[in-house]
Amino acid sequence: MTNFNNNSFKEIAAEFEKADSILLFPHMLPDGDAIGSCGALCHMLRKMGKTAYILIEDPVPKYLAFLEKDMCTFDMNIIDEPDICACIDCGEVERFAKRKAAFEKGKIKICIDHHATSKPFTDFSHISPEAAATGELIFKLLKEFPAEPDEYVGEALFAAITTDTGNFQYSNTTKQTHLITAELYDLGFDHNKVSVELYENIGVARMLINGRALDNMEIFAGGKAAVAYVTQKMLDEAGAEMDDTEGIIQSLRSISGVEIAVLLKELSDGRIKAGMRAKTTANVAEICSRFGGGGHVKAAGCSLDGTLEEAKALIMKEVEASL
Amino acid sequence: MTNFNNNSFKEIAAEFEKADSILLFPHMLPDGDAIGSCGALCHMLRKMGKTAYILIEDPVPKYLAFLEKDMCTFDMNIIDEPDICACIDCGEVERFAKRKAAFEKGKIKICIDHHATSKPFTDFSHISPEAAATGELIFKLLKEFPAEPDEYVGEALFAAITTDTGNFQYSNTTKQTHLITAELYDLGFDHNKVSVELYENIGVARMLINGRALDNMEIFAGGKAAVAYVTQKMLDEAGAEMDDTEGIIQSLRSISGVEIAVLLKELSDGRIKAGMRAKTTANVAEICSRFGGGGHVKAAGCSLDGTLEEAKALIMKEVEASL
Repeated sequence: MTNFNNNSFKEIAAEFEKADSILLFPHMLPDGDAIGSCGALCHMLRKMGKTAYILIEDPVPKYLAFLEKDMCTFDMNIIDEPDICACIDCGEVERFAKRKAAFEKGKIKICIDHHATSKPFTDFSHISPEAAATGELIFKLLKEFPAEPDEYVGEALFAAITTDTGNFQYSNTTKQTHLITAELYDLGFDHNKVSVELYENIGVARMLINGRALDNMEIFAGGKAAVAYVTQKMLDEAGAEMDDTEGIIQSLRSISGVEIAVLLKELSDGRIKAGMRAKTTANVAEICSRFGGGGHVKAAGCSLDGTLEEAKALIMKEVEASL
Repeated sequence: MTNFNNNSFKEIAAEFEKADSILLFPHMLPDGDAIGSCGALCHMLRKMGKTAYILIEDPVPKYLAFLEKDMCTFDMNIIDEPDICACIDCGEVERFAKRKAAFEKGKIKICIDHHATSKPFTDFSHISPEAAATGELIFKLLKEFPAEPDEYVGEALFAAITTDTGNFQYSNTTKQTHLITAELYDLGFDHNKVSVELYENIGVARMLINGRALDNMEIFAGGKAAVAYVTQKMLDEAGAEMDDTEGIIQSLRSISGVEIAVLLKELSDGRIKAGMRAKTTANVAEICSRFGGGGHVKAAGCSLDGTLEEAKALIMKEVEASL
């Protein structure tokens, strides 16, 4: 267990209780855990009579809009001199770079995070890479607050935990994750409503580009690899952005027998970007490094010049050789 | 809470303990809960020195093969005169019709199930519609057994529970579901391995037909409905069976703003079958009944004559009128 001489949740709760104004900082491009954790905390601070906001630098994604209420703001000066600035689900200044100056204005700085790369840099911090989601840590912190958590807290923390654990399927999920989720049910929220908000809110363009990419997929390396591509023309026709291609590579990897999945993206400048995922034992970081790219063992990427066909042939050759 | 004067798990466990030979009956077309629940129970009975098998009438789906081990059999005479025949995740004879005669041979008959339509018909039974999965009930039963549950029991019951709850997202999931899952973690199994077996084992043909159907989808009724189709020609080209179209309608329903999703299937005899799903408030059973079909409020179907285009136009008109 990693231990950075974390402050206890009791100590951190005491700081929040003393403060009148609090600004929360989720990481850039916020996800379910960032918005859910900040939302639950902000809501509870307001219940305790504090002035509290969530300062963002990127829009809240549509599927998380139901959690936002009136708490999120882009206004760097929403609070003049916050008693506390707290970065939540985010333990590195680079992950809220545009809001750095606003963060510095906090009289006291706090960090609550579960990312393995985070290190303490604030007055008070609790960093637990063992937690599957920062939502788990916020759950524990809220237990030290005098206010009673309510239905909204249940919704927000369930959203945080279920998104960051791939609906309790990823290896980061623990016994603790399920015990905390069980307790959330006592707050009487509708988990199925949250689930519909999170997962049944997919844009038409995303669904279309997903279908079109799967339609051109090829299985190779004796069934052990799958490749598909997305071109600018395909995006135009589907009315989609490159962001909408996010789930495609996961679909390719989920094919029976496929160990390596590759998605080739034709960027607007004509370069080809390859994303790769391994299912169990392959090392895609190694393959991508041969093209000057890199990443993690199971998720990596690289860029190539030349046409889509040329890039595809090169990548398929290397992937096949590695399997 | 429904209560059929259920036998306690202690009483049922005592019957299993007294028996030497046990035959388990999952429902036809067995799913994760049926195979996971039977697997865990069969494995424990064998650990206790019993002769135990799972008698099936349909093959175990590929994604569940990792749970099967050497327990499943099609051999109706694998045990001459079983001391116990137990139907698991299945509380109606119609759900194991082909194995009815084999079931009758059991000296004692037991039923453990969570389906709301099940009614007691055996010597001993425990039917709890409140349980999200029969796996939850088997978990409680196994606590009354003298043998210690092991890693395999963890895998099998996690598979049972996670598949029957849509990975803890469906409304049937309860606090109890999470508390039981938390306890399963003590058995030291690898939940992520189970998850890869269950969900990253999709056939190429299924992925292809999925992509091709999404590619032809249309949004109508002002964005509140989505329709897609699958023809025999599309199946042929993808090398797919009609079974492979299973997930498509769920993808359509998951589109933002879509309340009703329709999938039209051209059957081999030329008739058109329409499947419908509602997201929140629509009643698709009512729409399907206008075409002589039926089903549940949120999931229904009907059959139509005529060409695919004609059927599509008719259905779209009714769906649009209902929204």
